Amino acid sequence: MKKLFVAGIGPGAPEYMTFSCREAIEASDVIVGYSKYVELVKPLFSEKEFFDTPMMREVERCREALRLADSGKTVAMVCSGDAGVYGMSGLILELSEEYPEVDIEVVPGVTAALSGGAILGAPLTHDFAVISLSDLLTPIELIEKRLECAAMGDFCIALYNPSSKKRADYLKNACDILLKYKSPDTMCGTVRNIGREGEEKEIMTLAELREAKVDMFTTVFIGNEKTKRVGDRLVTPRGYYLG
Amino acid sequence: MKKLFVAGIGPGAPEYMTFSCREAIEASDVIVGYSKYVELVKPLFSEKEFFDTPMMREVERCREALRLADSGKTVAMVCSGDAGVYGMSGLILELSEEYPEVDIEVVPGVTAALSGGAILGAPLTHDFAVISLSDLLTPIELIEKRLECAAMGDFCIALYNPSSKKRADYLKNACDILLKYKSPDTMCGTVRNIGREGEEKEIMTLAELREAKVDMFTTVFIGNEKTKRVGDRLVTPRGYYLG
Repeated sequence: MKKLFVAGIGPGAPEYMTFSCREAIEASDVIVGYSKYVELVKPLFSEKEFFDTPMMREVERCREALRLADSGKTVAMVCSGDAGVYGMSGLILELSEEYPEVDIEVVPGVTAALSGGAILGAPLTHDFAVISLSDLLTPIELIEKRLECAAMGDFCIALYNPSSKKRADYLKNACDILLKYKSPDTMCGTVRNIGREGEEKEIMTLAELREAKVDMFTTVFIGNEKTKRVGDRLVTPRGYYLG
Repeated sequence: MKKLFVAGIGPGAPEYMTFSCREAIEASDVIVGYSKYVELVKPLFSEKEFFDTPMMREVERCREALRLADSGKTVAMVCSGDAGVYGMSGLILELSEEYPEVDIEVVPGVTAALSGGAILGAPLTHDFAVISLSDLLTPIELIEKRLECAAMGDFCIALYNPSSKKRADYLKNACDILLKYKSPDTMCGTVRNIGREGEEKEIMTLAELREAKVDMFTTVFIGNEKTKRVGDRLVTPRGYYLG
């Protein structure tokens, strides 16, 4: 059977990978992915064939993965975090109708909301929303509407892609929208380089987050009205009676 | 050092576990958790000491885990899915101030939104919200408000705890709220017994979901306005140009 895995490798460090992800890569002849993620797995699987493409070449990369699988090679398309959450599984499945003989298996992984959340403590123990601030593929009006709706519902929020060179003020704008419904004292946190060298975290208020400088390797967490600091951790209580 | 891991084991099958979760359990003397989850890991770590409690005894279970760790045993508190998402990491951290010598490490895991999403295809490749329909710890008015806000923002939605004996009509009520903003043709899916015996999935419209019978072992997925069926998968496109 012609086989293509779309596998989420987690945040980077090999120990965050699931056993099924590792097995999928081990069973593959070729590993395909965005250069940065392929670099993360290369040391673990040095005997494999690799095909990496720069960022922004997602359609090309997915077509190549499908072509390679259709030619008879077992292929693993690796994604950082989860295979689905802003990952390649959707695009692969959309394109897969052109390659009906290729069997596609999606292998989930630990997305940054979970791995970053664990580093901060427990910010997402209650209902939460995940929103990307990147407007490369999404109209900014829709992103802003979602920020507004998530704030209105007092969701905990994980923000992906909070910044880039072209979008330096996006986080500040996002905070301004959230501040329409959330208190400036709402507890927030940032985690940078999750599971990689130079990992760092910070806990702050929403008012402070508005002024924070973050980069594209940062995931941002915004609490709900009950989120609090416990020691050096960020914790959203679920509502248990502790008396 | 006195050590307590709060570890997400994923949906159940051992291959969905991360390497760091397995290492945390291996490094522990005692494994603590809700009986059902402890049963899932017992066969893998038969030589360990186990402490399990029935559902609804979360505070007692967490205090016992902290007490055991404080007495010098290395403890792993296991949670299904992720340690944070409706898991025990928040409660453990809240209670941890009474046990200042215990070092707590949160180990993330693959939550049902990701593992169930992978089984369905790629329903959560765009902004999404995770909402629990259980009103044991959350006022039903807040749950309803969050459903409304998530629908208003055209989020993809993963619903946890969609049903129980006492809450047989909750999913129908939730669908009625979503239908105020989402089309009855919105593509949805359900996954039951993720990563366990008897795993099954179904794809349907939101109108059909309203009539569906689901149980407490089911995770429900509701698409955004672009979510579609591709073969037997549920796919939310991210917006790439495929021409």
